[in-house]
Amino acid sequence: MKLRGTVLTMSFRPVLSEKYFTQTMDHFNFNSMGNRTFLQRYLITDKYWDKGHGPIFFYTGNEGDIWEFALNSGFILELANQQRALVVFAEHRYYGKSLPFGKDSFNIPQIGLLTVEQALADYSIMIRELKKELTATQCPVIVFGGSYGGMLSVYMRLKYPNVVAGALAASAPILSTAGLGDPRQFFRDVTADFESVSPKCRDAVREAFHQLKELAVEQEYGLIQSEFNLCKAPSSAQDIHQLFGLLRNAFTMMAMMDYPYPTHFMGNMPAYPVKVACETMLSGSNLLTNLKNTAGILYNSTGALMCFDLYSLYVECADPTGCGLGFDSMAWDYQACTEVNLCFESNNVTDMFPPMTFTGEERERYCLKRWSVVPRPDWFQVQFWGDALSTATNIIFSNGDLDPWANGGVRKTLSSSLIAINIPEGAHHLDLRGHNDADPMSVLSARKTEADIIAEWVKMERRRIQLSL
Amino acid sequence: MKLRGTVLTMSFRPVLSEKYFTQTMDHFNFNSMGNRTFLQRYLITDKYWDKGHGPIFFYTGNEGDIWEFALNSGFILELANQQRALVVFAEHRYYGKSLPFGKDSFNIPQIGLLTVEQALADYSIMIRELKKELTATQCPVIVFGGSYGGMLSVYMRLKYPNVVAGALAASAPILSTAGLGDPRQFFRDVTADFESVSPKCRDAVREAFHQLKELAVEQEYGLIQSEFNLCKAPSSAQDIHQLFGLLRNAFTMMAMMDYPYPTHFMGNMPAYPVKVACETMLSGSNLLTNLKNTAGILYNSTGALMCFDLYSLYVECADPTGCGLGFDSMAWDYQACTEVNLCFESNNVTDMFPPMTFTGEERERYCLKRWSVVPRPDWFQVQFWGDALSTATNIIFSNGDLDPWANGGVRKTLSSSLIAINIPEGAHHLDLRGHNDADPMSVLSARKTEADIIAEWVKMERRRIQLSL
Repeated sequence: MKLRGTVLTMSFRPVLSEKYFTQTMDHFNFNSMGNRTFLQRYLITDKYWDKGHGPIFFYTGNEGDIWEFALNSGFILELANQQRALVVFAEHRYYGKSLPFGKDSFNIPQIGLLTVEQALADYSIMIRELKKELTATQCPVIVFGGSYGGMLSVYMRLKYPNVVAGALAASAPILSTAGLGDPRQFFRDVTADFESVSPKCRDAVREAFHQLKELAVEQEYGLIQSEFNLCKAPSSAQDIHQLFGLLRNAFTMMAMMDYPYPTHFMGNMPAYPVKVACETMLSGSNLLTNLKNTAGILYNSTGALMCFDLYSLYVECADPTGCGLGFDSMAWDYQACTEVNLCFESNNVTDMFPPMTFTGEERERYCLKRWSVVPRPDWFQVQFWGDALSTATNIIFSNGDLDPWANGGVRKTLSSSLIAINIPEGAHHLDLRGHNDADPMSVLSARKTEADIIAEWVKMERRRIQLSL
Repeated sequence: MKLRGTVLTMSFRPVLSEKYFTQTMDHFNFNSMGNRTFLQRYLITDKYWDKGHGPIFFYTGNEGDIWEFALNSGFILELANQQRALVVFAEHRYYGKSLPFGKDSFNIPQIGLLTVEQALADYSIMIRELKKELTATQCPVIVFGGSYGGMLSVYMRLKYPNVVAGALAASAPILSTAGLGDPRQFFRDVTADFESVSPKCRDAVREAFHQLKELAVEQEYGLIQSEFNLCKAPSSAQDIHQLFGLLRNAFTMMAMMDYPYPTHFMGNMPAYPVKVACETMLSGSNLLTNLKNTAGILYNSTGALMCFDLYSLYVECADPTGCGLGFDSMAWDYQACTEVNLCFESNNVTDMFPPMTFTGEERERYCLKRWSVVPRPDWFQVQFWGDALSTATNIIFSNGDLDPWANGGVRKTLSSSLIAINIPEGAHHLDLRGHNDADPMSVLSARKTEADIIAEWVKMERRRIQLSL
């Protein structure tokens, strides 16, 4: 689910200062790194803060440059303005500029310090130290996160409720990534987004993949090259597999980013990209051309690409929903090879995509070869409780119905303080984004509910702190 | 607080079978040990178990051979008999026969995989796998532990409530080991035990140490050798310091093991050793002789020692309350040098012992030299919540008023499910020991309360499991 793209200079950028925190390299082995530290980046603003008294809103950064998430999570700053909070966006180790070993971070064994547990300990230590430094030890801390960052917010509340009083976890697929649920769910739900625009759209995509498959079977590689405007003709089953992956990924990204206005979270995306994709899929009689043009919405939004290069636009990895490109994608591939279980498949029956499996065995083979690691598919169920959440409190699980990750998360309220908020017109963590005039009512209402609950958590935590003094 | 001693063949030994579990070597770094495993020992009995239905009572083993704890925790088996439970005693990694690297386990960097976090993950994984293996996936699990083992039981419930439904933590000093509280508390409370037998007893001990100190200042080493029946005359301030440590340790052990009947938990101890010590301290006019004889209660219980060897009877380490001897003591020293904060001091003002400091700086210096590690004095406050326990549930904190560890633990009930049980006549986790006719009423009553609460937890957990099916 790694997202990459252009960082836009939005109005929040000048508000946030970029700083570095001296972080322990290995929280879980006192001998491994000789007590070494690294510099962990974070962004901070006290512009809205009621100094020493207002709450702390802490974003648990995910798989990428922290600026990307900060600039696409305007809600947190708007809420900070309302509730007079200090805001911190912390960058996840091994992403962006928070590289424990610089360029060597992605070598074996240096990569081994990239785990969820280390990231959570980083955030806990950082919060404790920043609170001391800023004379804010009595200030309640609320964590925020979207997607994998939302998972981390949940885990912070599960494992460090002494540090954080509550968590807003937007689009956090804590169940599917723990190996709970149906491996067909993800691509089925991507398909459902296109089907809901029009069943014809879904049929057109499925038929286009059929036609492509037939050309591939007949080894019509030249034709495939011209139909898809590929820089180089495919010449093997592997190339075709790569093309399938690249195309499927375009649909995945459009489903996730199906926002009601143009965004720049992952390249440039038009408003309602799924609708645009369906218009494109149904725009002419040549389905293959339509498929190519639909993929172009993602891969060639500016029209600057002269041809599609199969292996540079998309990189296959241990995450069938995409790892993105660059160093960050390597780190995410490693996480998908170790703790984060993403064995999702498409099969052309419950979804519109070509059959592409990613079984536990395939994952294990790939990961052993790529990173010399054996994945632990059940680890999250033990370490982060799986669906056994009954003892947890103060977590909001928000999900948008348009988001293919939603059904891998918690969709039903579990107790008075484990609250599911579903946003019918929402895509991937739309609620974390700043206000936009095109926002549907459902997200406005979700944000209002979230704000009220968070204010209540802060109030409760203040009372608790008062009583304990 | 490491305890060592003779393992007695009690009636429970034949009940327990010794087995080995294939355990992951490093839960927190997928690249460090190339996916290697080691054999972790555990003891198990299903003699009392209502198969597939009765609860699982799981002892979270502490700093020593698991047989020692199993054979001194008869209450758990008695309770299993009552409540038809499966019983497992799991050995802590790096102790007893559970050595990840065999004899090399105590080398640097191999020792680095000895952490509380690894131990907790071991227990969680072991419970999950044993439940599968024994068709017991629906059986509620309750954890038990005494002293450091009790701390682990608490942490299991804090960090893995998905795995364990409740914890009985007997004499678990979770606050003092997190650096919370007064460093003078421990030896003050040792002193109080002797004082409560008779203030004269306390005064005699203090005066004996004064006399010894004066001899040392005058370098009367020959006299000290003869008075204390040392194998070799002391010849330096270091030797005197060692003698002080050895003597203080005898009082510590007698205070901890102040049981109403003879025990063999740490060598042979008479019934009411504190009373015996005070009788000895007040038995003749030569206080130095009395002090020597009092130390002999611990070090020479059989009378077999011809002389006291300063450096073999007691080893100074990062735990001022003693690390014991042998390999286990090395492992505990390492833990006291990393996560477990035991900066306790005696000062001859708030206690009856010679002034012996163990500050954070002294600890740091020693640990860097001995193990190449820098201790993290605040780590437990972040990682295991310190005193911020308000979100936790289903933990019994039991403590005996005679136990010098008691006031480093939780002494007051914090909520309806965080229950403190205080045992006025109890020493170190007396409640975990099997029934004895000499047991005071207070421990019988504590065990009854514990049994009732645990039965209730099991019932509640059963209901929860039923609802979630």
